[in-house]
Amino acid sequence: MLRTVTCGALNLNNLGESVTLCGWVQKSRDLGGMTFIDIRDRYGITQLVFNMDDNKGLCETARTLGREFVIKTVGTVVERSNKNPKMSTGDVEIKVSALEILNAAKLPPFMIDDETDGGDELRMKYRYLDLRRNPVRNNLVLRHKMAQSVRRYLDALDFIEVETPVLIKSTPEGARDFVVPSRMNEGEFYALPQSPQTFKQLLMVSGFDRYFQIVKCFRDEDLRADRQPEFTQIDCEMSFIEQEDILNTFEGLIRTLFKEVRNYDLPEVPRMQYADAMRLYGSDKPDTRFEMQFVELNDLVKGKGFPVFDNAELVVGINAKGAASYTRKQLDELTDFIKRPQIGATGLIYARHNDDGTIKSSVDKFFNEEDLKQWSEAFGTEKGDLLLILAGSTDKVRKQLNELRLEMGNRLGLRDKNTFSALWVLDFPLLEWDEETERYHAMHHPFTSPKPEDIALLDTDPKNVRANAYDMVINGTEVGGGSIRIHDRALQALMFKHLGFSAEEAQKQFGFLMDAFEFGAPPHGGIAFGFDRLTSIFAGLDSIRDVIAFPKNNSGRDVMIDSPSTIDEKQLKELKIKTDL
Amino acid sequence: MLRTVTCGALNLNNLGESVTLCGWVQKSRDLGGMTFIDIRDRYGITQLVFNMDDNKGLCETARTLGREFVIKTVGTVVERSNKNPKMSTGDVEIKVSALEILNAAKLPPFMIDDETDGGDELRMKYRYLDLRRNPVRNNLVLRHKMAQSVRRYLDALDFIEVETPVLIKSTPEGARDFVVPSRMNEGEFYALPQSPQTFKQLLMVSGFDRYFQIVKCFRDEDLRADRQPEFTQIDCEMSFIEQEDILNTFEGLIRTLFKEVRNYDLPEVPRMQYADAMRLYGSDKPDTRFEMQFVELNDLVKGKGFPVFDNAELVVGINAKGAASYTRKQLDELTDFIKRPQIGATGLIYARHNDDGTIKSSVDKFFNEEDLKQWSEAFGTEKGDLLLILAGSTDKVRKQLNELRLEMGNRLGLRDKNTFSALWVLDFPLLEWDEETERYHAMHHPFTSPKPEDIALLDTDPKNVRANAYDMVINGTEVGGGSIRIHDRALQALMFKHLGFSAEEAQKQFGFLMDAFEFGAPPHGGIAFGFDRLTSIFAGLDSIRDVIAFPKNNSGRDVMIDSPSTIDEKQLKELKIKTDL
Repeated sequence: MLRTVTCGALNLNNLGESVTLCGWVQKSRDLGGMTFIDIRDRYGITQLVFNMDDNKGLCETARTLGREFVIKTVGTVVERSNKNPKMSTGDVEIKVSALEILNAAKLPPFMIDDETDGGDELRMKYRYLDLRRNPVRNNLVLRHKMAQSVRRYLDALDFIEVETPVLIKSTPEGARDFVVPSRMNEGEFYALPQSPQTFKQLLMVSGFDRYFQIVKCFRDEDLRADRQPEFTQIDCEMSFIEQEDILNTFEGLIRTLFKEVRNYDLPEVPRMQYADAMRLYGSDKPDTRFEMQFVELNDLVKGKGFPVFDNAELVVGINAKGAASYTRKQLDELTDFIKRPQIGATGLIYARHNDDGTIKSSVDKFFNEEDLKQWSEAFGTEKGDLLLILAGSTDKVRKQLNELRLEMGNRLGLRDKNTFSALWVLDFPLLEWDEETERYHAMHHPFTSPKPEDIALLDTDPKNVRANAYDMVINGTEVGGGSIRIHDRALQALMFKHLGFSAEEAQKQFGFLMDAFEFGAPPHGGIAFGFDRLTSIFAGLDSIRDVIAFPKNNSGRDVMIDSPSTIDEKQLKELKIKTDL
Repeated sequence: MLRTVTCGALNLNNLGESVTLCGWVQKSRDLGGMTFIDIRDRYGITQLVFNMDDNKGLCETARTLGREFVIKTVGTVVERSNKNPKMSTGDVEIKVSALEILNAAKLPPFMIDDETDGGDELRMKYRYLDLRRNPVRNNLVLRHKMAQSVRRYLDALDFIEVETPVLIKSTPEGARDFVVPSRMNEGEFYALPQSPQTFKQLLMVSGFDRYFQIVKCFRDEDLRADRQPEFTQIDCEMSFIEQEDILNTFEGLIRTLFKEVRNYDLPEVPRMQYADAMRLYGSDKPDTRFEMQFVELNDLVKGKGFPVFDNAELVVGINAKGAASYTRKQLDELTDFIKRPQIGATGLIYARHNDDGTIKSSVDKFFNEEDLKQWSEAFGTEKGDLLLILAGSTDKVRKQLNELRLEMGNRLGLRDKNTFSALWVLDFPLLEWDEETERYHAMHHPFTSPKPEDIALLDTDPKNVRANAYDMVINGTEVGGGSIRIHDRALQALMFKHLGFSAEEAQKQFGFLMDAFEFGAPPHGGIAFGFDRLTSIFAGLDSIRDVIAFPKNNSGRDVMIDSPSTIDEKQLKELKIKTDL
C-alpha cells in the first residue's frame, strides 16, 4: 500500500511512530513559521505540521498545495498542544519529514465540506466531487451496511439470493417498460423488469422455498423528486406460508436493521386494516409518529342548520393538541394550505378549547355551548387544544384532512426524523377502478390473491373484494408491500378476466406462469421493500437521491456523463430500428 | 407456517413427535396393504407411510397422488424397519394421520430426478421444473453461498458495495452495447453497462477508497455456449495501492472462497509473466493442473535437412508422460485433432522414449540417435514418455500446441474437476493490433496504465508496451482480470490518441472521466471477476448456463417466457422509434 495508516487511525497510542499517510488536502493554514494541513480520506482527517525552522524546503512545498491536492506524506506522530476533542485524531499531529504530490487538483467548483455552497445542478454535474462530502458519502456507507445486514438476516433464515434476468419481456400491465431492441431477433424487444415478480413466483414453483434478491428495477414513468427510472428493491418470496408468517419474518428484518444499523429499538409493529387507516388517517400510509386520529362528526353536527355540514357526505376533524393559542394569522395560513389546488378543500372550521374551559368555534352561529361540549367529548379535548374540521365527500375530505394532519404534525414538531414508527396496513382492496381506461386495475398486481371469503364478490361487488395484501409503512412512507399470491391456474385466469384481459392476451403474456401453476405450484407469498426509500428514511432524508451514488435528474438524464445520448447510425442499422421524431 | 418441519429435518431424535410436512410427491409405491410416498422439498426427502388396515380412506387418497403433487401431511415420526443410510432422514418415516392436496400436478414433461430424460430445449422451456432437480438447484445454492462469502470477505476489509447505474451511455470502445431508447429525451438512447469501469474509477476520485459490487453487465455479442448477453461480475477497485496489493487482496478472496464454500485449501497462487505463459503454454490462461510445459527446439533441430523444421519460425513440443504406448491409431487421432480447421496445424511429429531406453521418432530419416538423445535431454524424458512436436510460425504454432497440450491433459486424466490450480498472469501487453480496423485496441481497456518504464515505447514500439495488468486463471480459465489505472489526464489523453480517438471524440465519450482526473484523482486500480464463470468452476461445470437461474439460449432468447418479443405500436410511438426490417 502507498500508506501505512489511514487518516482516521492515529491517536495518543501511536506517539513516536513513523507513519505514511495518503489523502486529499482538506485545508491549509500558515501561522508564523508553521504550516498546518488537514489531510482527509474516507476514514478521517489528520493534521500535518510543517516548520520553516526545521525544513524550509518542505514547508515551502507544503505552502504550494491547493485544496483537494492528492498527497503522500511521511512523518512522526506527536502530541498536539492544541487538542481538538471533536476529532478521533484530534490529540495528535504528524511532524512531516517527506511530502509527495500524487496528483494536483484544480479548484473545485464548490466547497468540499459538510455544508457546501454548490447548487443542485452543479453538484449533479460534478457528482464525483459531491460524493467526497461526508454527509453524501455517509449515506452510501449506510446503504452498504443495510444491504449487508439484510443479507445476513435472510441468509440465516435459509433464504437464497437468486439473480433473475434483466432482459425480460414487455407486458402491458402496470407502469411503462423500458425496452431494449434485440439485434439477434430482428423487430423484437426485451424489456427491463419493473420487478422480478413472475420470476420469483417461478422459483417458488421450482421449490426454492425462500428467495430474496437486492435488485435493480426499472420504470419509464415521468419523474418526481422522489422517483428514479432505476431503483432498487429488496425482493422476497416464501412458500408454504400464510400472511402471518410474512409479517413476522419481515417485521423481524426491519427491527434487526434498525438495531444493527442505527442501534434503534423499534417496537413491535402494530397492524391496521386498510379500511381503518383510511377512516382514522385518511391515508393508506399514515404517519404514526403522532396520534391526531380523525374523529367523524356526522352524528353530532348534522341538522343544526349549517349548510356546509348538512350537505356534506362526511364531516371529520382532528384535535391539534396544544394549538388553541394559534392566532388568526396562523389559522388563515392553515386555510390557505388546504385551499391550495393540489389539496382543494373549500374551507376550514375550527374550535378552541380555551384555558378557561370554554369552547369557541368559528361556527358559533350554528352550534351552541352544549353542541361544542359534545364535540369536545368526541375528540377528548383538554384545555389548550384546537379542533380542525373539514366537510365534503368522503374520499376527498379524508385526503384533505390527511394533508392537514401532516401539516399540523410538522408545525407541532411531531415528525422528528430520528423517531421511527412502523405500521402494517392489511387487507387492501384487490381492485381499483381506473377512470381513464374504464376498467379495474389490480391495486398491487394481478398475481395477488383475493381473500378466499371474498372471491364470490368478484362478480357482484368487485371493488369490495379484499386482497391478502399488506404494506409496511414507516413514518408515513410506504417502504414495502406484498401479498399472498394466487397459485391456482383457474383463479389466476379469472383474475386476468376481471382485469379486462382476453383469454388469448392472458395466455400470450403470462402463459408461462399459468402453465407453471399446473405442474405443482405451492402456496406462496412475498414482499418487496423499496431499498432507496428505506435507506433514505434510515438516513433521515426526504429524497432518495442522496442515497443513490449516481442519480438521474427529473428528465431522466445523468448530467455528469451526459446520458442518454444519440448513438451511431451503424448501431441503429444493426438493431434494425430508426428514430421517428 | 403450513408446516412444522422441513422434509430434511427428521431423525431418530424426533421419534414420537407429531409433525406437519409440506412438499412435492417425489415417488410413490404400493406394497401389499401399505403405500410409501417420498415427499420432497429443498431441504430433503422424507418417507410417508400409509396403511390400509389403519385408515383405508387415507391410504386410498394417497394412492391417487401423482408425481409432483403438492401435499400437506400430518403424522407421527416412527423408526423405519428398512433404514436408508444414504438419506439424512433415512432412519425414520412418518405414519400419516392426515393428508391434504395443496395443488395437483400434470405429469412433468421430463423426470424430476438427478439424472433426467429431458433434452436441453425441453428443460429450457420448462426451466422452473428443471430447477427442481437437485444438481441444478445446488448450483444456485452454491452461487448464493459464494456471493455471501465474497461480501463478508470484502466488507471485513472496509470495501463498500456501491450500486452504479444500469442506464448509462453508449461508447464505441469494446463490445457492442445494448441500448435503451429514452422516451423523455427523444432520439436519444441509454446503454446498458458492459462493466461499471468508469463509475468505479469516479468513486475512487470521490475518495471511496475501496469499492466493490456484484453486478449485472451486458454485451450484445454473438453468443457461444459459454456466453450470455447478461452476466455478473464481482467488480472491485482500490485507491493508494500498487499491483502487489491487489494481487494479495484478491488472492485472499479466492482462497477464502475455496475454503469457506468448498473446504478446499488452495495453495498460494503462483505468478507468471504473460510472455512466459505464451512461451511455456502457448496461452495467456494456461491450465496449470498439470505441467507438460512447452520446450522450444530450434537450436537442436534446425539444419538437419528436415524442411518442415528448417522452414519453421518455431519448433516446439511437449512431453506427454507415460504416453509412449500410444498406438498408431491414437497418434492418428491426435494428428486429426490438430488438423481440424479451428486448430489448423499441418502435421504432428512425435518421438517415443521406449521401455528399452531407445528413442524412436516419426522423423528418424533426418535425426540420428544422438539428435534424439538431445531432444530427450531437453524435455527430460523418461522411459514411457511421448514427445509431441509442432512447427510453424511462432504465434500459430503456440496456439496449436496449447490445444494439443489440453487434449493430452484430458486423455491422460490430468484435468480433474475437483482439483484446482490458480495462477496470476502478469504484465500483459497494453495494446493489440486489430487487423480489421487497422488500429491498436486496448487489450484490457483504455483506462489501463502502461508500465512507467514502457511509456516511452508508445510512440516507437507500441506493441511491446507492457501494461500494469493482470489476470487470474483457474484450471485454464480466465476468472478475473484487472489493472492499475491511469489517473492522470494527460496520460489518459495520450492513450486515447494511440487508440485512434480524436481529441474531440475522447472528450465527447470520456470527458467526464478526464475532467475528474483534474480534481485530485488518487492512484488506483482494481479487478473484476466473472462470477458466472467462477461459480461454474466451483461447481465443476463446463458451461455457465447451469449456474444461472434463467439463462438465454444461443440466439439470446428466453424460451420459457418467449422473450424478446414484438411490442405494441403505441410503445414504439411513445419512444419515437420505428422498426426498420
